[in-house]
Amino acid sequence: MDVPADSVGFVSPVKVYFDQMLPLASGASLNDFDLMVETYGELNASRSNAVLVCHALSGHHHVAGYYRDQMKSEGWWENLIGPGRPLDTRKFFVIGVNNIGGCHGSTGPRSINPATKKPWGSEFPVVTVSDWVNAQSLLANRLGIDSFAAVIGGSLGGMQALQWSIEFPERVRNVIAIAAAPKLSAENIGFNEVARQAIMTDPEFHGGHFYEHNAIPQRGLRLSRMLGHLTYLSDDVMGDKFGRDLTDGQNEYQFGFDVEFEVESYLRHQGDKFAGYFDANTYLLMTKALDYFDPAKPFAGDLSAAFRRSKAKFFIAAFSSDWRFSPKRSKEIVRALIANRIDVSYAEIESADGHDSFLMPIAQYHALLRQVFAEIRV
Amino acid sequence: MDVPADSVGFVSPVKVYFDQMLPLASGASLNDFDLMVETYGELNASRSNAVLVCHALSGHHHVAGYYRDQMKSEGWWENLIGPGRPLDTRKFFVIGVNNIGGCHGSTGPRSINPATKKPWGSEFPVVTVSDWVNAQSLLANRLGIDSFAAVIGGSLGGMQALQWSIEFPERVRNVIAIAAAPKLSAENIGFNEVARQAIMTDPEFHGGHFYEHNAIPQRGLRLSRMLGHLTYLSDDVMGDKFGRDLTDGQNEYQFGFDVEFEVESYLRHQGDKFAGYFDANTYLLMTKALDYFDPAKPFAGDLSAAFRRSKAKFFIAAFSSDWRFSPKRSKEIVRALIANRIDVSYAEIESADGHDSFLMPIAQYHALLRQVFAEIRV
Repeated sequence: MDVPADSVGFVSPVKVYFDQMLPLASGASLNDFDLMVETYGELNASRSNAVLVCHALSGHHHVAGYYRDQMKSEGWWENLIGPGRPLDTRKFFVIGVNNIGGCHGSTGPRSINPATKKPWGSEFPVVTVSDWVNAQSLLANRLGIDSFAAVIGGSLGGMQALQWSIEFPERVRNVIAIAAAPKLSAENIGFNEVARQAIMTDPEFHGGHFYEHNAIPQRGLRLSRMLGHLTYLSDDVMGDKFGRDLTDGQNEYQFGFDVEFEVESYLRHQGDKFAGYFDANTYLLMTKALDYFDPAKPFAGDLSAAFRRSKAKFFIAAFSSDWRFSPKRSKEIVRALIANRIDVSYAEIESADGHDSFLMPIAQYHALLRQVFAEIRV
Repeated sequence: MDVPADSVGFVSPVKVYFDQMLPLASGASLNDFDLMVETYGELNASRSNAVLVCHALSGHHHVAGYYRDQMKSEGWWENLIGPGRPLDTRKFFVIGVNNIGGCHGSTGPRSINPATKKPWGSEFPVVTVSDWVNAQSLLANRLGIDSFAAVIGGSLGGMQALQWSIEFPERVRNVIAIAAAPKLSAENIGFNEVARQAIMTDPEFHGGHFYEHNAIPQRGLRLSRMLGHLTYLSDDVMGDKFGRDLTDGQNEYQFGFDVEFEVESYLRHQGDKFAGYFDANTYLLMTKALDYFDPAKPFAGDLSAAFRRSKAKFFIAAFSSDWRFSPKRSKEIVRALIANRIDVSYAEIESADGHDSFLMPIAQYHALLRQVFAEIRV
């Protein structure tokens, strides 16, 4: 396989073991835990050039590069990161980490619960954005990183970037939060709830202990992902991509319930693919972390109070066609930062690709990120 | 039970049997069929004052009035219809009809298939908006109605009203189509497809023959309705109604997967209620009729050509916060009518209630309908 010259190239993940207790927001705790990690570039002598990339709902530690001897193995933000790319690995040491509760190697529902010697399943504690940031801070300690040059993420990843500035104001110099929101709306929670109910009412879910039953709630996972995809795209981009086209170039209706429109075929395919590898309990945990994120909650809803101790410089970006976390939601963040006289730049980027835009190599968007990273002193 | 003075009062449905073949768009046909019907007001001597009300996805023939000795039995458009109400039954003879394929008494998937002597189930032919309009025209014949003073409907009901003017231009003098669209977008079809997959992959669906198994695919129906409700409302109205409120006045998170946010409670309740009475095969048929509606299709996508023979006067209305069938979609209809120099009025009504607005007694909206009906000569 040929790897582009401006890719970080072939990479390997590392499992990092933490022999220490991780207290969680719920009151529960993990006695010890693993984090799956990838890094790209070199940490400089002053350990000042580290950038943490936080993942969203279905993401993981494999952010950039390729796995040797594996087809289509590029990281989920490969288009952003590499030598000469906007997040330039000649300048920065970039870290990707799979969050606690995930299903890509970090301690999560598939791990063994030391109390029962069986997989945690649905007994795995509910985790929050704050819990993830705490775990990430322990990883930073391990790597000897006092302060990140930047923490960056899109969607749920952007919420982690925001949380860093709230929880560890001295340890992050730049926060880059893209297509995020300061908290979910009722509609947002509603979509998550439909997805959760699809999974939890699947008979193969077995109350979250499907591993022991050699079962997988694939029907529920598939529905969750189909619904997710619908909300990550926009009406316009779906119109452009699929319109009312029928599969196989057909022109006449079939008057049945087999797949018929291209959009049906696309959604079923996405759902099937996802249900083949993603963990149902992780999906539940990730949606719950989204629902719970609300840094203004301890401050009686005053978001500006939440950022009072923040010291980072912020770059906030949103996409015109994103109706899941619309530009309006990003502006709420911007206003709360401005109220604290915090240095913040905001970009509303024209794009038809909806919420998924944050993963796309949109020229204006990447040019802005290139500039943001170029200005960061290390 | 006290019935308001301006209600049509207590009503009873009538099952009307048609001993004649109904050919369908799919090529299949029904040898004979029943239509469940309700009427309000009196047909005048010249039979010129009839108004047909067409129902949407989950609707039926019980449009107005109450059932004696039954609590909460008001018709689904009770707020619109009655003596002195916008659709005034002192002037008009109003007809509600459950469509073919429905689950409220008209011939549908629960009816006996004469070929097998068992319920049709998933063998019931796929029906279209055009099929419904044909069946409704046979009902009009039976009642001696040559021409309707108006055909009115919201959403899928509005599509039937449009189809009347296309198929029977001499038989409808006014078309009132509210919160409708000239065809579904890819996103619209996508939401229908997720709902269908939820039902069809429910193990209790049994390939559509769940009646014989004494089973009901309640999980799938419940998910379909939860998702439906999310798309019928707007982000704003959900924010106003539920926000991020927790149930039972709680203020702290429970860190579990029981119902927790008010919006979760609302959606689960709506889903459970619906799954208790609606037929899964009917839901599939209704969504497919929506997907297939595309009167411009025989004209290579030219919507104005579809209306070329239409003779009715049109009133088209849409609601500002309706993102399922947005005002933009109604304007497509208006433009196609104007291209034919057809008399059309269009109203875009401010409302936070989303697609469901068409069922609400919004003052400006009802005032407009009152005016439209007042101007109709009978």
